[in-house]
Amino acid sequence: MPGMSGTPISELGSRVGEEVTLKGWLYNRRSSGKIHFLLIRDGTGICQCVASRADLGAETFELADHLGQESALELTGIVREDRRAPGGYELSVKSLRLVSAASDYPITPKEHGVAFLLDHRHLWVRSSRQHAILRIRSEIEAACRDFLDQRGFILFDAPILTPAACEGTTNLFEIDYFGERKAYLTQSGQLYAEAGAFAFGKVYCFGPTFRAEKSKTRRHLTEFWMVEPEAAFFELADDMDLAEDFVAYIVGRVLERRRAELAVLERDISRLERVSKPFPRISYDDAIARLKAKGFAIQWGDDLGGDEETAISEEFDRPVMIHRYPTQCKAFYMKQDPARPEVALCVDMLAPEGYGEIIGGGQREDDYETLKRKIESHQLPMDAFQWYLDLRRYGSVPHAGFGMGIERVVCWLCGVHHVREAIPFPRMLERLEP
Amino acid sequence: MPGMSGTPISELGSRVGEEVTLKGWLYNRRSSGKIHFLLIRDGTGICQCVASRADLGAETFELADHLGQESALELTGIVREDRRAPGGYELSVKSLRLVSAASDYPITPKEHGVAFLLDHRHLWVRSSRQHAILRIRSEIEAACRDFLDQRGFILFDAPILTPAACEGTTNLFEIDYFGERKAYLTQSGQLYAEAGAFAFGKVYCFGPTFRAEKSKTRRHLTEFWMVEPEAAFFELADDMDLAEDFVAYIVGRVLERRRAELAVLERDISRLERVSKPFPRISYDDAIARLKAKGFAIQWGDDLGGDEETAISEEFDRPVMIHRYPTQCKAFYMKQDPARPEVALCVDMLAPEGYGEIIGGGQREDDYETLKRKIESHQLPMDAFQWYLDLRRYGSVPHAGFGMGIERVVCWLCGVHHVREAIPFPRMLERLEP
Repeated sequence: MPGMSGTPISELGSRVGEEVTLKGWLYNRRSSGKIHFLLIRDGTGICQCVASRADLGAETFELADHLGQESALELTGIVREDRRAPGGYELSVKSLRLVSAASDYPITPKEHGVAFLLDHRHLWVRSSRQHAILRIRSEIEAACRDFLDQRGFILFDAPILTPAACEGTTNLFEIDYFGERKAYLTQSGQLYAEAGAFAFGKVYCFGPTFRAEKSKTRRHLTEFWMVEPEAAFFELADDMDLAEDFVAYIVGRVLERRRAELAVLERDISRLERVSKPFPRISYDDAIARLKAKGFAIQWGDDLGGDEETAISEEFDRPVMIHRYPTQCKAFYMKQDPARPEVALCVDMLAPEGYGEIIGGGQREDDYETLKRKIESHQLPMDAFQWYLDLRRYGSVPHAGFGMGIERVVCWLCGVHHVREAIPFPRMLERLEP
Repeated sequence: MPGMSGTPISELGSRVGEEVTLKGWLYNRRSSGKIHFLLIRDGTGICQCVASRADLGAETFELADHLGQESALELTGIVREDRRAPGGYELSVKSLRLVSAASDYPITPKEHGVAFLLDHRHLWVRSSRQHAILRIRSEIEAACRDFLDQRGFILFDAPILTPAACEGTTNLFEIDYFGERKAYLTQSGQLYAEAGAFAFGKVYCFGPTFRAEKSKTRRHLTEFWMVEPEAAFFELADDMDLAEDFVAYIVGRVLERRRAELAVLERDISRLERVSKPFPRISYDDAIARLKAKGFAIQWGDDLGGDEETAISEEFDRPVMIHRYPTQCKAFYMKQDPARPEVALCVDMLAPEGYGEIIGGGQREDDYETLKRKIESHQLPMDAFQWYLDLRRYGSVPHAGFGMGIERVVCWLCGVHHVREAIPFPRMLERLEP
């Protein structure tokens, strides 16, 4: 990178013995009286910088003894290999320039309450744990795109402002559209992705989605990101194969490239290393039988709640796919199994270790008359779905897809309990700031 | 790809002489009486399929003579090289299966009005011109990410639901947030990206942004996508270098990988091939002098409108960067030039050929007291910006970034006049469907 940027700390390994300039922030420091040990973070890593009174001169050495956490600094010195140092390298400082002093940085090594940390989310993201989570998030997002791009899926951005609801009108954020009419924030790009699949064969949308749910659980945000592939000439079995390949690739990529961040999070890597194909696939019928055997008071036809999902996923050491739920549990656009109309050709994927549902998808109803009846029986406004019905009027083909919630996957791979840490600025029922 | 997908038409070049099955839609057909020529599209390309009565049998041959546009088909046959065929290959059909018949497809080769086409956007995206535009859009978006990822920028998703306005409260879409308070749809992720830059060094956000503008020009959508890189220890000169490298890379990538689509659009490629570094950089002062010389009634201190931008960009065969606009024209967060406080350390990049501004950015005010005064003088709510001021309280450093509007770039590279064709489902003042 040209310009005024310093040498990234992540690149020090290739600069041993050379003089470099680091530009970053003071993360921590200690002093032996004659030597300062300054821990500097620059966003790419943390480096221990060793500064003696002799090298810096008395005045700068004195200054360094009073620097507050998060003061911005430029440090020039020689890169040395040191296995004991964080990251494996340290800087023998020759000169230090204070860019800006900070004092009384609000986030200290002591314990803070969650409300306080969320109020300071703009600073909290600098902390090593949050930094690691969000670095893994960005790796997961890149992995999603790379996987789909390599398989010929075309990015097809679905609209955020929509005139109608995809899965009913509850839980929608409503917008006054120029005083003329109402618009809603999208809950899913799927219906639009279906139009894209008929134009491009294979597409995906990847963007924010919204649910105005008044729930305060650890698994709910009002704004969250979804990646939604959709393919023409695709059936449920293809869809499950794709979901399996997709998740296995993402986990492998994070293990390959984000080991340091997983170590910061003290994630049990062995649990992630077990996530290889094939993933178990069980039917909803089988899931109900397993739950009954465990003593759950559940009947065929009931949807699976969080406790039931956890009980099923605990039986496996990798994600499990549950397919063919009762038609009545699923959205109107799910295709019924021709062999058993009481079940839908759908699939949910549950993460292991109790992290819940990460994928929901399935084959879409491709028959015009059947879909029209479903829209009627779900009491949805037929007018709003004419364009969607058009996809079955003109060249309908079997097609399928799924949606994967990014924050759920971040929580699982990072071993994070609450989705509020899985996105830079979480939005919840009582949280819209900063 | 395993499963039921056919051989993609884009891969026929490697399958010459082999038997393959194509799965797609009837794009056009003609017949010589004894032979049908069926043009099949599958989203990856268009292939001419040649079917004789002898090969198909009388019944299927008869069926093929009555297939409507967009009927879904599976065709099995041998791949032959044929320079005259679209794409360079054709299929000698051995068998044909009708997946679903279509008749009276609404979009025919005849001219349709724009309102009609936009009402049928879910089908219009199948047309070769729209298909090419959206394929190039996806290439541009992939190029943006690849460039930034390679340079060490971390994806940092900014929130869409925001409590305050980035550039004032006008033109904002307002949401009722659980009956408790108001929220607004973001106009830019920049302020949040600044928090990210101080945590990660270099970040970008890439998502939908919103403007509730009551304008009906060809350059305005209410919902559009922006990519916004932001870097710490970055000054205006670095920012201009980055913007130049970024745009040159994107144009080069589209020229390299999307030549077929540019040909469909009859884009004058030679105009795009001239887009190489260095891009001209002129000051606002210089721009005003040039405009006055052309007879524009413009004074120092006036912002540049669309006509002025076009007049400036016409002087160059590649994008031009105009830097250091009057402080009064720009947002409160722009840093004033220390050498000349009446101008801001900002830059706009104008596309050539009259396609207007594609990038706006600059160096951000990094001094706490100055920024606080700016927020006051712009009469913005100080409370809402306390978190943003925190970034200057704790380790402030020079930093800069920019935003690039995806649809504007799509229009420019595709040679498309109106942004409504640059996004899958455009949202405008009077357009929220489908």
